[in-house]
Amino acid sequence: MSLKALALGLLATSVLTGAAAAQDEQIRIGVSIPAATHGFMGGLNWHAAEAEKRLEAAHPNIDLIIVTADGPEDQASDLEDLVSVQQIDALVVLPFESEPLTEPVRAVKDTGAFITVVDRGLTDPTIQDVYVSGNNTEMGENSAEYMMTRLGEGDNIVILRGIPTVLDTERFDAFMAKIEGSGINVLDDEFANWNRDDGFEVMQDFLSRFPDIDGVWAQDDDITLGVVEAIRQAGREDEMFVVGGAGMKEIVRGVMEGDPLVPVDVLYPPAQIATAMDVTVAHFTSNGPVRGEYILGSPLITQENAEQFYFPDSPF
Amino acid sequence: MSLKALALGLLATSVLTGAAAAQDEQIRIGVSIPAATHGFMGGLNWHAAEAEKRLEAAHPNIDLIIVTADGPEDQASDLEDLVSVQQIDALVVLPFESEPLTEPVRAVKDTGAFITVVDRGLTDPTIQDVYVSGNNTEMGENSAEYMMTRLGEGDNIVILRGIPTVLDTERFDAFMAKIEGSGINVLDDEFANWNRDDGFEVMQDFLSRFPDIDGVWAQDDDITLGVVEAIRQAGREDEMFVVGGAGMKEIVRGVMEGDPLVPVDVLYPPAQIATAMDVTVAHFTSNGPVRGEYILGSPLITQENAEQFYFPDSPF
Repeated sequence: MSLKALALGLLATSVLTGAAAAQDEQIRIGVSIPAATHGFMGGLNWHAAEAEKRLEAAHPNIDLIIVTADGPEDQASDLEDLVSVQQIDALVVLPFESEPLTEPVRAVKDTGAFITVVDRGLTDPTIQDVYVSGNNTEMGENSAEYMMTRLGEGDNIVILRGIPTVLDTERFDAFMAKIEGSGINVLDDEFANWNRDDGFEVMQDFLSRFPDIDGVWAQDDDITLGVVEAIRQAGREDEMFVVGGAGMKEIVRGVMEGDPLVPVDVLYPPAQIATAMDVTVAHFTSNGPVRGEYILGSPLITQENAEQFYFPDSPF
Repeated sequence: MSLKALALGLLATSVLTGAAAAQDEQIRIGVSIPAATHGFMGGLNWHAAEAEKRLEAAHPNIDLIIVTADGPEDQASDLEDLVSVQQIDALVVLPFESEPLTEPVRAVKDTGAFITVVDRGLTDPTIQDVYVSGNNTEMGENSAEYMMTRLGEGDNIVILRGIPTVLDTERFDAFMAKIEGSGINVLDDEFANWNRDDGFEVMQDFLSRFPDIDGVWAQDDDITLGVVEAIRQAGREDEMFVVGGAGMKEIVRGVMEGDPLVPVDVLYPPAQIATAMDVTVAHFTSNGPVRGEYILGSPLITQENAEQFYFPDSPF
């Protein structure tokens, strides 16, 4: 084949491909998430943007439109715009709160859009086509199982809880059920509101009251940062270890490097938004069905597997 | 740009793309499924092949290797070959039977491979990284809900069950719980072993014994074919309607065309193998986590939505 023939052949292919792509139905998918107001949501926003780049590069006929909200009312207004201005074919939504977003999401559904709900559910789950979420029960169980590999009869732990919610109760109940009969003593549990400052204060209190602590279940990586600070200030880092949760990159890096104070983490992935975007795109591109419930696992992150959970460019 | 420059430019691009692809880590994913010995498995085999074509075209560094087995021993031997000959990085497996495949799949896991289990579970679920399955409870519930939109106090139905298994019991119990209090009478239920001939015989028996039948829950499309034949032979097609299940293309086409005898179907998709292949590929290509349980919905297939469940080229 001459170069000219080759060039014309390649051009013809390009033109045909372009034409085929232009003929493909253009699909618009709205992604409505809370703004990056704290660590976990920062990670979630970053993963949504990464998934948008990856999916739009792989599927020229897919347009993902990410909008972030500062509160439930703001998010409801975002949803109206996604319908009226963007005319979306599908919606991926992590509701700021369940109750105030239920009717706004139903209104989107009523336009015929495919609905994927992430993490925090709606009060009427029949609205969603797909539900993607982490697994709080497994998170509690896997944390307890790790504790039991390190501690036993007569060892003492303290527990820092999150905010009094269904989610927190699921984690706590699963943890307590799992350690039952292990002989591990729970000295006390207190709420630390999923933040570093409260984690620091609650842990200071525990350290002043209990001279013998072998393990700490902080169940959240923001809390863990405060707990670690309190332990270091007290100079008691050789007496105990801490188990957090989420998969914050600083914590995961410590696990990779073999930090004895925080030797493991338990995943509750902000990247679940990317999974939700993947299955929503698959609804339009795959021969496999996607409707249903996708409950992501909360595996233990150890020194051996930490690398696959480490995203150095993520803010979280 | 001259044609020559253009051709060289395009060639250079191709070479670079090829080189980049060659540098990408090559990922080998084994897909082990039962051979296409009956309708549902025929559909499952077809959907696996479709997904292979689609995923390999989209991801040049992914190699999917589908192997089909005639029985549990054959499948165990397939798994050994996938490890020793193909050196797979991941396995998607629909176990022929749960018990005899559990240790063979564990042996694959022990090589470090990522494991996705489909439909029929293993006796030790801790082996799997992802589980993808249909939802038998929802299948029973959605079938009952449709019945209740058509029938009420004093109406009579008959039920054809599958094979006495956990799966069949889940469907049946969910159906019965849902219709409780509706006033619908269940005249009788009998096993029809998920096949057409038994469906025909059982329905002939029901027709001879019951002069007044308003609805039939056949819960399976193979059974439905036999049921329809028996009703037509008896000339009673104007007296009742039939609800099957799976999404067989002949049944879905009838639903699309408004068949009054089989007005709806309930999905239990053989295409779930494609979903399982999608999430396994996503483990290597997406920033979203995939480990967990993905339980696919069993939506009602109606004349309005039937088109999206109709695959004219599938054997099922």
